Amino acid sequence: MPHKLVRMQRADAKVPARPVMLAIAGDSAAGKTTITRGLVQALGPERCTAVCVDDYHRFDRAERRDLPFTVLHPDCNYVQIMEQHLQLLAMGQPVLKPVYDHRTGRFARPLLVEPRHFVIVEGLLPLHTKLARACFDATVYLDPPEDIRRGWKVRRDTAERGYTAAQVLAELERREPESAAFIRPQRAFADIVIRFAPPTSPSPFTGRRVPAGTPLSAELLLRPTIRHPDLDGVVPDGTVFDGAVFDGTGGGSRAIHLRLARDADGRPVDALHVHGDAAREDSEMVEKAIWSRLGADAGPPACLGRTREGQRTEPLAITQLLLVYHLLDAAR
Amino acid sequence: MPHKLVRMQRADAKVPARPVMLAIAGDSAAGKTTITRGLVQALGPERCTAVCVDDYHRFDRAERRDLPFTVLHPDCNYVQIMEQHLQLLAMGQPVLKPVYDHRTGRFARPLLVEPRHFVIVEGLLPLHTKLARACFDATVYLDPPEDIRRGWKVRRDTAERGYTAAQVLAELERREPESAAFIRPQRAFADIVIRFAPPTSPSPFTGRRVPAGTPLSAELLLRPTIRHPDLDGVVPDGTVFDGAVFDGTGGGSRAIHLRLARDADGRPVDALHVHGDAAREDSEMVEKAIWSRLGADAGPPACLGRTREGQRTEPLAITQLLLVYHLLDAAR
Repeated sequence: MPHKLVRMQRADAKVPARPVMLAIAGDSAAGKTTITRGLVQALGPERCTAVCVDDYHRFDRAERRDLPFTVLHPDCNYVQIMEQHLQLLAMGQPVLKPVYDHRTGRFARPLLVEPRHFVIVEGLLPLHTKLARACFDATVYLDPPEDIRRGWKVRRDTAERGYTAAQVLAELERREPESAAFIRPQRAFADIVIRFAPPTSPSPFTGRRVPAGTPLSAELLLRPTIRHPDLDGVVPDGTVFDGAVFDGTGGGSRAIHLRLARDADGRPVDALHVHGDAAREDSEMVEKAIWSRLGADAGPPACLGRTREGQRTEPLAITQLLLVYHLLDAAR
Repeated sequence: MPHKLVRMQRADAKVPARPVMLAIAGDSAAGKTTITRGLVQALGPERCTAVCVDDYHRFDRAERRDLPFTVLHPDCNYVQIMEQHLQLLAMGQPVLKPVYDHRTGRFARPLLVEPRHFVIVEGLLPLHTKLARACFDATVYLDPPEDIRRGWKVRRDTAERGYTAAQVLAELERREPESAAFIRPQRAFADIVIRFAPPTSPSPFTGRRVPAGTPLSAELLLRPTIRHPDLDGVVPDGTVFDGAVFDGTGGGSRAIHLRLARDADGRPVDALHVHGDAAREDSEMVEKAIWSRLGADAGPPACLGRTREGQRTEPLAITQLLLVYHLLDAAR
């Protein structure tokens, strides 16, 4: 124990370097933890600090029963303290973070969080305010179709948080107006919007019916707000027609392709599509191409793409690799 | 509830002004809370934020059982987080402060602390580091004789914290080396050192035996590190001989007097002595004089000088008034 303390004191004493900060915003059960877990494994837990900003609740579960809003509402959270802690972490300073226990719905003892090389911040509202957004090197919004997210939330909250399916669905209903008002607007502030959705069937690439159990496809909107890896000549151009509206349904000629598209708000974006039935070889080629842009010696990390169930999927692997790329690129 | 929230949001939103910061350091049961309570009452609770920095413990009571040091040791506390929170408060920012429950010895839910006009910070280690000290407009160290403090601690910890007298005395024994190493050195960094001690008897001022139940005398060391109110012509000069060493025993000709003295380290100080049997009239005259230096219209607050038992004593009243003076003077 004393040894541990000495180490902590030393870490405290040295002048902190500025860490690389990534935000992963999205509604409850949008897949934030799955994405984060893969990034931490790929970069090495000893170099990462993962922070969930859903611990900044003002009220515990019992108190919220009498309130006219849900945890999605900024007034239900210490947003100013969240901003402050993000600023401190971004400056390399430790914070004493509140801890909300999802099992009991009560607050536990606060936790000392010291920023390591990479700080991955996930939660409901990390992009809600300008001050919070200013803390990040790259920002991500997870945007699964609502029915997919609903299924994920029912599965998790019944298995891990002691709710019945009916309770979870009622809560989703209750949260919907606040999700629309506070969570989904954060999509506009993301450098990368990630949508996992069931693959179209029959596959537009093979023409064959997509078998049951095929992984979800990923549609990655790469906004020109940060510099993405150059995929010219690596990923086929799936642009079908000028001014194509990004609609999440894919399209193009190959299981992995890049397409010039317009976002819902009309702004131009690159849309990187990874179909659920993309072959391992196709994915590997793209991964190597992304990785080579970093000038790294070793190949890309092998541990990417694991779902909650531990199964590897190519869409998830490429998604995580792109985020790893941005973290490493920002650190250069 | 929603109304309250709206108000909180508004307070959050406005650009914060820099509050006046006062530190009151001292060992356990040295009288910090009694002093603080009087200041808050005198200045108005709506203008004051009282913060106890003994909540920044790293370990709860059960964990400390296996540790080679007590709560007095800086390694037993998140000193860096304490510094950070003091800096934030000094800049007018709120903090989410940890809460240590002295009754249970465990951590409770953190508390949002928003700095009001005056922030009074009391605790074991507020002056331990340079960064912490830099946050304060004025600093106080409470320095009662050890036997007096021991009595206060036994009385409080048996009445309020569920210990036996023997346990408290054993704990004091265990803490002594750390008190010497970390608590008492803070005395050197105080602008004002306050020592409450039993009045000398017979009284050097009246020549009569001091009756039982006479309040403790106060000896206030006013270091020239901040600008104290000018008491020339108001308080008699009690300087008896050049190079008098401050020894806490009083001396001089009147129940309230100012004496040029040398601190234990040889540095010159003004020592303001208020004998336990000082008359209300003498005290009132001094209070009015201190107050008039602020250019205030109304007279000094009437609520000063209440002990834990609610009894008014002149030494405590003048002590608190001097601190109120410094808080108001710093705010000008």
